[in-house]
Amino acid sequence: MRKKVLITGFEPFGNDTVNPALEAVKQLEGVIIDDVEIVTQVVPTVFHDSIKAAIKAIETYEPNVVICVGQAGGRTQITPERIAINVDDARIPDNQKNQPIDEPISEDGPAAYWSTLPIKRMVHHMRKDGVPASVSNTAGTYVCNHLFYGLMHYLTNHASQIRGGFIHIPYIPEQTIENGSPSLSLDVIVRGLKTVAVIAATEKDDIREIGGTIH
Amino acid sequence: MRKKVLITGFEPFGNDTVNPALEAVKQLEGVIIDDVEIVTQVVPTVFHDSIKAAIKAIETYEPNVVICVGQAGGRTQITPERIAINVDDARIPDNQKNQPIDEPISEDGPAAYWSTLPIKRMVHHMRKDGVPASVSNTAGTYVCNHLFYGLMHYLTNHASQIRGGFIHIPYIPEQTIENGSPSLSLDVIVRGLKTVAVIAATEKDDIREIGGTIH
Amino acid sequence: MRKKVLITGFEPFGNDTVNPALEAVKQLEGVIIDDVEIVTQVVPTVFHDSIKAAIKAIETYEPNVVICVGQAGGRTQITPERIAINVDDARIPDNQKNQPIDEPISEDGPAAYWSTLPIKRMVHHMRKDGVPASVSNTAGTYVCNHLFYGLMHYLTNHASQIRGGFIHIPYIPEQTIENGSPSLSLDVIVRGLKTVAVIAATEKDDIREIGGTIH
Amino acid sequence: MRKKVLITGFEPFGNDTVNPALEAVKQLEGVIIDDVEIVTQVVPTVFHDSIKAAIKAIETYEPNVVICVGQAGGRTQITPERIAINVDDARIPDNQKNQPIDEPISEDGPAAYWSTLPIKRMVHHMRKDGVPASVSNTAGTYVCNHLFYGLMHYLTNHASQIRGGFIHIPYIPEQTIENGSPSLSLDVIVRGLKTVAVIAATEKDDIREIGGTIH
Repeated sequence: MRKKVLITGFEPFGNDTVNPALEAVKQLEGVIIDDVEIVTQVVPTVFHDSIKAAIKAIETYEPNVVICVGQAGGRTQITPERIAINVDDARIPDNQKNQPIDEPISEDGPAAYWSTLPIKRMVHHMRKDGVPASVSNTAGTYVCNHLFYGLMHYLTNHASQIRGGFIHIPYIPEQTIENGSPSLSLDVIVRGLKTVAVIAATEKDDIREIGGTIH
Repeated sequence: MRKKVLITGFEPFGNDTVNPALEAVKQLEGVIIDDVEIVTQVVPTVFHDSIKAAIKAIETYEPNVVICVGQAGGRTQITPERIAINVDDARIPDNQKNQPIDEPISEDGPAAYWSTLPIKRMVHHMRKDGVPASVSNTAGTYVCNHLFYGLMHYLTNHASQIRGGFIHIPYIPEQTIENGSPSLSLDVIVRGLKTVAVIAATEKDDIREIGGTIH
Repeated sequence: MRKKVLITGFEPFGNDTVNPALEAVKQLEGVIIDDVEIVTQVVPTVFHDSIKAAIKAIETYEPNVVICVGQAGGRTQITPERIAINVDDARIPDNQKNQPIDEPISEDGPAAYWSTLPIKRMVHHMRKDGVPASVSNTAGTYVCNHLFYGLMHYLTNHASQIRGGFIHIPYIPEQTIENGSPSLSLDVIVRGLKTVAVIAATEKDDIREIGGTIH
Repeated sequence: MRKKVLITGFEPFGNDTVNPALEAVKQLEGVIIDDVEIVTQVVPTVFHDSIKAAIKAIETYEPNVVICVGQAGGRTQITPERIAINVDDARIPDNQKNQPIDEPISEDGPAAYWSTLPIKRMVHHMRKDGVPASVSNTAGTYVCNHLFYGLMHYLTNHASQIRGGFIHIPYIPEQTIENGSPSLSLDVIVRGLKTVAVIAATEKDDIREIGGTIH
């Protein structure tokens, strides 16, 4: 039976005019791999509005899996996030000039939610396919973590049959001309996200494999 | 009225024969600053045993504040941790050859506990004093996070009047001869930890200051 | 009139089983862009033998330009080298187990040779084309610098009408699965090297553009 | 017989209001260790003027050894430089707003000069003493390399009995509060420079020890 995977991508933020997540999302729209269909949604890089846009897309598409994707400039690998934490602590304003500092995302929510995606398995298959990947234990405290937490809060309370999670991706090469940061080509990122979508849609259980961090 | 601060430090682990946390703890034992007295406890770098040793010291010393300190090789600053997460995912075995992978620390505990130390205020005062410091949003998934989670789980359930948290410190210069990693001198670390102890003992509320991370 | 560019690539060395320079060279063999023809030569990662192989190829192909390419694991950009220095100082043995320490490459050669390629112009055009690039001021002290120095020593003394230089390239993604280092996709590297070949073959003079390093 | 070592330090430059080299120099002035006396000279962070100031100090003090010291923000270790290259390529203006791009330092000078200090031996003794140190193969293309080249050009042509070289040092902790860069405490830097001064004054020959770089 066909599985539907909703992938969201952010609009550019900060000083960036490009967001690799957005570029990747454009290439993933409507892609069908075996019995897995990918649908996509662009979300604003804005506290709360991003969650609303994601929830609206979930209600529209009724996917089996939701994967939110965001840029983590400076990272070298595709990094499925393990956990979302209940705090907004913005280093820079969002695209609507909101800059919450140490505020809870949900007043009555728990301190954190786990990703319900098989993150180790996703990493395993990306690496097997030559795509640099590892598990991350922090999604930061900006809009990415915010959307991740908001997504898991919504799914837990309103749609617990849907699995969800967040994946951070590196800059693409075009973004690193001036800053000299690490990058990963868009085609490698897209390849990784396709693998992730298929694994997330078809494999419920995670594997037990070394992939933690010392600190 | 005198306040008592318990500071714990780990024994060396992995390939290291020195642990800067341990060296710092030795220098902090018995230090009295104004009305703040520091007592210390060495803990084994072993899953579960580290928590037991910390709890035993808490019961012995009955401190007002507990600060666990661990090494984060590769970091450049003293980093108070914001949150402890309920998972053990060991990249290398601990000093007793335990290597749990993706196991909960407490079967019935929440996904995460917040530090109850005024982390932004501690960072603020260390920086004012010339000590490189910033808030960290992940303590990793090894024994450091394990002890941090175990500490907060214990305090929440058995001694909620005691504040507690975890601080990661960089290598000291002697440890970086071969690996070329960043380091911070022991005297700077000790100076930072003294500031932390005084602030944690005397200031209950945190300040609102930019200090989050984008990702 | 057609220009011929000879590009050399190293065999894998150290713990690597892949060398991106070699992979790139394979894709560049026989490529013709406008009036520029690329010919290629694989060279051993061995002190002195690498120089001999390059000289033999120069004598065979009689190119207008020689560009030697090597891997600089950990770099994030394609980096044309500015200068070759007259010293071998090997951190690890080469593929024939030679490990010279602080030995001159040429007993009677000068301390250093400049690249005779238009390095700033090459960087300028790669960046314009979206390829991360910058000038490097050290090619290290291993076989890459050795070949670079040997090439310039030969050209200076025996074929001064041929321009030559060295370009370091990052790991490709497949090489970074375990080490988490930065990488650049092979297609981006190949695209950058094509730009370099055309610029080097058709533009003799360099441009004056900011691109130095503070230290 | 007493040996005299002249150590120079730069005034702060760029956005920095502190220069660790200057701070170190202040602490080294007049220090006597066994038969080695240290004298110091502050030099402006200005192309050409820095060389003039150093030469004037050499003529005044008539030292046996000259060691110029400069800041390399971002490095983690004390790094004796191996080679000075004959080019000014300024990424930012100097303190007199000069910003030469790809200009030779000396029209008739060679491409490069080697340090005449026993750099491997200096590194060896610093490391033995717990001070993080390694050989560097590039002093950049800014005022540090400029002074280094100018020093060696002068010594080679006018005072070849005097040994000379350049040492880059990391930020000190106070400078890294905002930027999060690696640092080394001033007392560790001063300790390292004392070791360097004694070794440079008393040991003419270098040792043969692994310490090169792959790239």
